[in-house]
Formats: sequence, structure tokens, C-alpha cells
Amino acid sequence: MGNELRKYEEFLGKGRENFLKKVEEAYKKFEETKTFYFPTWQYGEAKGTLFKLEVEDAPKFGQNAFIELDSGRTAFLSIDMQTDFAGTKGYVDVMGYDLKATAGPIEPIKNILETIRGTDIKVIHTREGHLPDLSDAPFNKVLRSKIIGKGTGIGETPEGGMGKLLVRGEPNWDIVDDLYPIEGEYIIDKAGKGAFGMSNIHLVLKNLGITHLVICGITTDVCVHTIMREANDYGYWCILLKDCTGATDEGNYKSAIKSIKMQGGVFGNVSDSETFIKAVKEAKLK
Amino acid sequence: MGNELRKYEEFLGKGRENFLKKVEEAYKKFEETKTFYFPTWQYGEAKGTLFKLEVEDAPKFGQNAFIELDSGRTAFLSIDMQTDFAGTKGYVDVMGYDLKATAGPIEPIKNILETIRGTDIKVIHTREGHLPDLSDAPFNKVLRSKIIGKGTGIGETPEGGMGKLLVRGEPNWDIVDDLYPIEGEYIIDKAGKGAFGMSNIHLVLKNLGITHLVICGITTDVCVHTIMREANDYGYWCILLKDCTGATDEGNYKSAIKSIKMQGGVFGNVSDSETFIKAVKEAKLK
Amino acid sequence: MGNELRKYEEFLGKGRENFLKKVEEAYKKFEETKTFYFPTWQYGEAKGTLFKLEVEDAPKFGQNAFIELDSGRTAFLSIDMQTDFAGTKGYVDVMGYDLKATAGPIEPIKNILETIRGTDIKVIHTREGHLPDLSDAPFNKVLRSKIIGKGTGIGETPEGGMGKLLVRGEPNWDIVDDLYPIEGEYIIDKAGKGAFGMSNIHLVLKNLGITHLVICGITTDVCVHTIMREANDYGYWCILLKDCTGATDEGNYKSAIKSIKMQGGVFGNVSDSETFIKAVKEAKLK
Amino acid sequence: MGNELRKYEEFLGKGRENFLKKVEEAYKKFEETKTFYFPTWQYGEAKGTLFKLEVEDAPKFGQNAFIELDSGRTAFLSIDMQTDFAGTKGYVDVMGYDLKATAGPIEPIKNILETIRGTDIKVIHTREGHLPDLSDAPFNKVLRSKIIGKGTGIGETPEGGMGKLLVRGEPNWDIVDDLYPIEGEYIIDKAGKGAFGMSNIHLVLKNLGITHLVICGITTDVCVHTIMREANDYGYWCILLKDCTGATDEGNYKSAIKSIKMQGGVFGNVSDSETFIKAVKEAKLK
Repeated sequence: MGNELRKYEEFLGKGRENFLKKVEEAYKKFEETKTFYFPTWQYGEAKGTLFKLEVEDAPKFGQNAFIELDSGRTAFLSIDMQTDFAGTKGYVDVMGYDLKATAGPIEPIKNILETIRGTDIKVIHTREGHLPDLSDAPFNKVLRSKIIGKGTGIGETPEGGMGKLLVRGEPNWDIVDDLYPIEGEYIIDKAGKGAFGMSNIHLVLKNLGITHLVICGITTDVCVHTIMREANDYGYWCILLKDCTGATDEGNYKSAIKSIKMQGGVFGNVSDSETFIKAVKEAKLK
Repeated sequence: MGNELRKYEEFLGKGRENFLKKVEEAYKKFEETKTFYFPTWQYGEAKGTLFKLEVEDAPKFGQNAFIELDSGRTAFLSIDMQTDFAGTKGYVDVMGYDLKATAGPIEPIKNILETIRGTDIKVIHTREGHLPDLSDAPFNKVLRSKIIGKGTGIGETPEGGMGKLLVRGEPNWDIVDDLYPIEGEYIIDKAGKGAFGMSNIHLVLKNLGITHLVICGITTDVCVHTIMREANDYGYWCILLKDCTGATDEGNYKSAIKSIKMQGGVFGNVSDSETFIKAVKEAKLK
Repeated sequence: MGNELRKYEEFLGKGRENFLKKVEEAYKKFEETKTFYFPTWQYGEAKGTLFKLEVEDAPKFGQNAFIELDSGRTAFLSIDMQTDFAGTKGYVDVMGYDLKATAGPIEPIKNILETIRGTDIKVIHTREGHLPDLSDAPFNKVLRSKIIGKGTGIGETPEGGMGKLLVRGEPNWDIVDDLYPIEGEYIIDKAGKGAFGMSNIHLVLKNLGITHLVICGITTDVCVHTIMREANDYGYWCILLKDCTGATDEGNYKSAIKSIKMQGGVFGNVSDSETFIKAVKEAKLK
Repeated sequence: MGNELRKYEEFLGKGRENFLKKVEEAYKKFEETKTFYFPTWQYGEAKGTLFKLEVEDAPKFGQNAFIELDSGRTAFLSIDMQTDFAGTKGYVDVMGYDLKATAGPIEPIKNILETIRGTDIKVIHTREGHLPDLSDAPFNKVLRSKIIGKGTGIGETPEGGMGKLLVRGEPNWDIVDDLYPIEGEYIIDKAGKGAFGMSNIHLVLKNLGITHLVICGITTDVCVHTIMREANDYGYWCILLKDCTGATDEGNYKSAIKSIKMQGGVFGNVSDSETFIKAVKEAKLK
């Protein structure tokens, strides 16, 4: 085994060396410009328009940095803006949480959609939900939801409700009217909090050639964070817009935002809708 | 399409109905006993010994509940207890964080290992790390680590350090001596914060027939939470032992713990080492 | 690194030793009985009824062996029995292939469904198809289908056709009437030839506690083989019923069957509908 | 549900329409030139040099077509050229198969490596193998290997053998000397026949920005076909070089090659080493 490993280090060292040269170059440019430039050595020349987005508390708290995006490889990912999470008699409402926090992001997300619709930034919406036979719903998930929902859980219709909670095809499961997809936008249906093991998002992002994700939606510490973590692990550049997301608990919301910024951006970066809209407008995207 | 969907609801409704009967039964038993019993209808009769573990703030904050585990289908998952995260001149140390928080869990995890070694509970250790050529390390991850690490990032050796940060095979990447695996234990090497898309954990857990995961390790809000989220999405019953985990920021640690308990246990449940050790000892596991 | 590996072999050797003891036991029992017994040490005691199914050319060509299944952990997997693959003006018909081969399995599959409906064997149907916006359809797949389809490819309606080829929700995409699912059966929609990376089958099989898959459907060398390969890689015991599957080319069909049997059953085993029906009837499943 | 679906078709139709326009354009260009051009609308402008590779029996048997590749986004994937599959006292030898077929591809692959080393085409080698504790080896896989191996299976050392069959780190598990990786090349270790669910290949291909895979290795109908199927499902353009691959059975080899070409290229395309080397030389890659 020792011999095999000796050989290993010989040829693997070169790969690391080459890769670290690219890192070194980007590092130096960052030190000068505080900008994470779009890595053309990795993805190729821009397909659309390159533009810069300011992100906060990067690389350290109190500092600001910039990420350069290629509009042709950027997706705006709106996570789970469904009645079940933000509307009356939906899943979150039945559990007894205040809807203010989860419905709050509707307005700023709407503003963004108005800005980017018509540009070459792709718009992708996700929906959490289960098949009508609940075959893709873990038993413990459904059981817990029934216990916390005072006897009404996933797959059941609450008194006065619109339909079965978190079940695909039910009115409460669909995206709220204010943010409903328009022609040319995409929807990804997922059977969990995350998306990469629970949907075909991997395939869709690959088909669309996406490298950067501008993320919003609900809830911050659950579905939004899970998807951001997964995407980040696969190397997607992720930027969460902090006013376009909400949680059922204010402290968890704040920590979820802070946690992203640790370790120089352990899950990506944080910006807000105003900054993003400004960047898009200035870039005059096609 | 309408016709097809009509047919759909006819046959799918029955599947949901059957499933919700099982949920209803478990719900009623929970209301009486505050216990999530091991679901034999789903997994079969116990392979080992059934025992109960008390979990806190479940189903609501201020309440306590119990989870019944089958020792033969339980894995104790120790996440990333590596020098890179808990030791001098490792990755976390180079970034400038205090090691107290991440090294803190070593003692309570050690106590647990002493208790369960020799029983039929499986012990699985994970390690975050990248191939020596960094081919499985996303560019942005390495770049960010270099920026926050004052010029020394993943794949590089810090001054006075033991080896290349987060690179497989380096001394700093390995598990700390106090918790080093012994014969018959398992190690899963993963290339990200999460494990399900970044390693063969899926295959290993399936081969071992695991249904319940008792989780510990570092860091709470990053790797531990990511893996717990993924496992929970796939239906594993997850219980985090709160004194056996630590984060680089105290507030994030607290929120990570709290966040698990939202929505009746959105990512699973929380207990501690003392409670777990007591439960194991009383169960007199083989 | 050498030191780390030395430690490695010390503790890993024990795990291998334990595992190989189980293999040795099963090997000896196989030598005596030609039976792959249900591994209770791994999955636990039977949930349903144990029964034996004869498989051909195992372990070597010209020999027969038996696999013991637990009815409560067995799924009958009917792959892509859709009009698009077996009916007039569907995808396969438009490409100019003879429908005899792909429609042939309908009758024997029907016989099996009549036998197992009402037992505790789970019935799962799969459908290949893409979202109406084709966001989950690879560009090269659609392009090739258009070229071979004389100008009509995936997402388009052939002259005199029932709907858009391979698009979810279209009549041609749905399962043929003779084999249409009934209440309590499951459907998995997948966006590729395979299922494990292209659908939530992983989650569904885990939720249902499946260990053994009795497989049929079309086409043998494409979707059926791809799914069987994936499931086998994850450790599922797979048995293909050779008269319940068909391909667009007779030689490819035969080789697909033969290929399974290489290396002592490299992708699982092969049986037929008569043998399976007899085994199920004799077992008197609940 | 009807209402929701009505809305669905409204906005999804536009996405399909846009996508089918790109397909229509590529289809017309193909009809004129018999060439699958590199889709810059999807991946962006070439990173390296564009060059054309002739493929056989495409779109129909008896016809030839061309695929345009971007050298900067192409990987040459050499699958499992390990002693265990092609050398004395390895896994395949112990099972009693003739090594001629599996060792045959060594020479033509060597020729290709000599041609492309130094260009910007990435070279990736895969190895099938299991952890020393066999925790990632399915029980049925190991058991079957022992039965067919006359008592010596995966994890055991055959009489006169070099080490434990298919175990990582053993000499027999490593790549044969003639094709051993050199500096700057990549290795992917996988725990199954396939790679996408059994290794981090997904992450590595994404990091390297690969779109096209030129595939060779052993065995044709097992590992090579499984990986080609998976990669094709995700939208990678796959071309198998038919003289650079071999199987344990000649008929299965031929059918595996033929099967790729069905349905206009259901798993990709087929070429050979001479054609590929000529194409690379004429392109004068950097």
C-alpha cells in the first residue's frame, strides 16, 4: 500500500499545484479589488452580461465584497413561496406560527421578479410537497406534523382549509398568487427540505448551465438553508437576499444569516433585494 | 390530462389512507405515552434491543418526549472530530477561531464511546477532506478559505502546521487521538459539509440496515446540521446530543440546536450525553 | 500518511473479518442448498412471508438456484409500460420500431398483477417522461429523438398522435390500460432511463422498507437494465422476469438477459412469470 | 387541481417552445452537415479548441455522423483498467474468464494517452474497489463473488494472489502499469459498477466543467455501460471508443456496442481509437 501511495503523491501533487495557481491568482485579485471575479478559466467566457453584486460581511464581518455574475449563467431561486408556508390555513398556519415572518418576503421578491423578468437571468421556483399517496413522505415527518398540528398533519385537510397539507396538486401547496410563475420560468417540485437528493434540480441546473444562484424564499433556517448548503457543497456560488427570506422564529432567522458568513462565507454570501435590483438595473441586462 | 388525474386520485387516495392509518395509530400512542415507538410495521421486528431515549423540548418547547430505538439499527455518528476542526494548526485554528468550542465535545463523546463500544450500536466516524489533487474541492470553497486564512487555505500547509489543510492523508485531517476509531468501527470520508451527495454514506447506512442516528461532532451549524438535514429528509430518525457538539460561534450553536426543535422537530430531536449513556446502560445492550 | 494507514488496517481488518464471517456462512448454506437465504442478520426477521423463487443459470449457466424473499420487503417493479413505449403513435412507434417486442410483456405482467394484488408485495410502476417545459430533458436526448423520429421528437406531437412524446400528463405518456395501477399501488416518475438519479425512487424504496425487487417492463436493454444496474449497486436483490420484458432488438434483448448472469449474477438474477406466479401461489401470501 | 394545471400549461408551454426552437436549429444543421455542433447557447463559447469526431452508425446503422467537441470541456474517461479486471490473479482471472478480452484495450488506450497527454483534454481514470472493512460492499455482491470465485471472493486473497480482491489499496486493485496515471491526471474511486451514485464523479466533472466524455475501459457491458448510461441521463455527451473496451463475453461486447446506437444513439455514440487520435492530431490541440 505504501508504494501505491508514493506513486499517488507524485502525480496528484501536480494537479493540486495547477489548481492552487488559479486560486492564488483569484486571491491576489480579491485582495486588490475585493471582488470574486467570474472564473472564466473554469466556466468559459460569459454567456450573458457580467455584473457585480455587493455582498455584506465578506470576507469578514464589517467588510463588504463583490461577486461578479454572468447573467446567462445565473438563476434566481425562489424557494417554497407556497400558501402552505406563507398563507392562511396552510401548513405553517396550522402549526400555529405567525404568518408575518414567512409572508414578509413576498413584496421584495415581487420587486425582484419585476426587475429581472425579460432579462436572461433564469427564474426557478421550488415547491415542497408530497405525492398524493404520500409514498415519498417519511413516516416520522408526517407523524411529527400531526402532533404539532393538533391532530392535523401532512396529507390531511385542516378545518376550513383549502386542501391536504403539503400534497402536490392541492391549492394550498401551490405558489402564492403574487409570485406565481409566468411563461418561461421553471418549477422544481421536491419531496424534502433540501432539493438535491429530493428532486431533479441537479439535472435542471446542469441543463440550464447555471453557475450562480441568487436565493430567496422561506423558511430561512429550514428549506432555504438546506438547499443553499447542498448547492454550495457542489460548488455553486450562492447569494442569499436577506430581506427576501423569513423564518418562523426571529432568532433562528438572524443566526441562519450569520452562519452563512462564518469562515469567510462557509455557505456563500448575503446581500439584499435593493442591492441586487440596483446591480441588475445598472448592468442593463438583455 | 384531466382524465388521467381523475384516475390518479382514485388509486392514490387508497395509498394515502393506508399510510395515514399508521400515522393515526402512532399519533394516539404518542398522545398517551409521549413516545415515538420504533415503527415495526415499517422496519420489521427489532434486530437488537429496544430502548427509550428522552429528548428535550418535544413536541413543544418545555415538554419532553421519548424515542424508542433498536440498538441493532442504530448508528452513533461522530462527525468530523478531526484535528483540522478541533486541534492546533488545523483548518479552524488557522482561520483564527477559538478551539475551546470545537474541542469541547471531545470529552463527552469519549464517554459515550466507552459506553457503547462492545454493544451492537454501530459507530461511524466521518471526516471532511479533499483528494490530494483537490479535484473534488470546489474553487470557491478553496478561494474563500485562503482569503479568511490570511493567505493559507485548503490544500496548503500553514506555518508550523502538520500538513496540508483538509487534505486526505494529512495528519491534521485525521481524527483526534482521543476519539480515534477502534476495530470494527466505520469511517466515511466526505468531500463537503454534507455527506449524502459527497460520500458513499447512503450505501453504507443501507448495508448496515440503520434507521436511527445518534449524532455528535463539529461544527454544529455547519457539517453536523447539514448531515442531519440530509438524513432527516431521507427519513432517518436523528437525535443530536447537544453537549457533544460545538460551533465557532456560541449564538449560532444555540440557534442550530433550537432550529432542530421547531415545527415539532423539523430536523429530528435533541438530547445529551448523560441521558443517552443512562439509556444505553439501563437497556443492558448486548 | 504511512502511520495513518497502519492504524487504518488495524481497525478496518476487524470490520472486514466480521463481515466475511457472514459471507462464509451464507456461502456454505448456498453450497448445500443452492439458496440465497433472506439475510436476517442484515435486514431483521421477515415482515411478511418468506418464500423461494427459482432463478436460472445461477451461479453458472446451466445451473439453477433459489432466492428467498420476504413478501413484506419485496416490490414488483413494472418499468415504463407506457403507450410511448408499447402503443400506437407513441415514442417507440414514431421511431419506426416494431411494437410486438415491447407490447409482448403486457400479458405476462397482467397475469402477475392478478396474482399478487391483494398480497403484501408492493407494486411500483415507473414512467419515463419530462416536465411540460422540458427543463429536465437533456438537449442531446431531445435532439437525437427528433433526428431518429423523422423530425418529430420528444416534446412534439406526431401526426395523428395522442399528444406530446414523453411529456408528463400526455395520454401517450401514461401507463397502458391493461396494466394501469389500482388503488394502493405506487408510481414513480423519472426523467431518464435510470431512476436513482432521476427520481425519488431512493426515498420511496426506503420508506417502504424494500430489500428485493422483482423487475419487469420495457425496454430490456435500456430503462430496465439501467434501473437494475443502479439498484444492484445499492445492494438491492434484483430478479428480472425474462418473459415480462422486451426490447426493440431481439439480439440486444438476449444479450441483456445473458449479461445479468455473468460473474455469478453481476446485476442480479433471472426468472420468468410462470415460476414467480407458482412461487407466490405456493407461499399463500397474506 | 384542474385550475392549477391550466395555469401550468400556460407558462410551461413557453419554456418548451423556446427550448424546441434550439432543438429545431440544431436539427436543421444536423440534416445539412451530419454534425452535432457544440451547443454554445447552452455551455458558452469554447474554452479550448473545437474539433470534430466521426462516430459510426449514427443517426442510423450504416450512416456516419460527427460530434463537435470543445477540448477544454472534454474528459477522456478510462474506466477500471485495474489488475483486478485485466491482470493475472485479479478478480476476473479468479472467476475463470479469459484475460485476452479485458487486457486487449490496454494497447489502444495507451496510444490515446500518448496523443492527448499535454493537451487540454482532461484524463480521468476510475477504479472499482471497496473500503478495507467492506462497509461499502453490498452483501449480495460479495457473496456472489465468493460463489463464482470457487470460494474466494471480494475481500479475500486468492492463492498466489497479490492481495485482497477489489479492496482499495491492494496492488491488484490498482491501475495496470501501462496505463498508470501521470501528474495532472485524475482518479475517481467508486464502490460500484456505476459512478454517479457510488463516487464523487458528479462533483469532479462539475468542478472541471466537463460536457463531453470520450469513454474507454472494462468491462464493456458492466462498468463501462453503467457509467455511460448514468452520464447520458445527466446530459453528458458520451462517445465510446469500441476498440478501447472489452468484455468477458464476445456476444455481450457486441450487443453492448449495438445497444448504444439504437434509437438514434440512446446512450450516446461509438467511435474508435484511430478516428479519435486522427481527430485530435488534426485539431492541433494546445
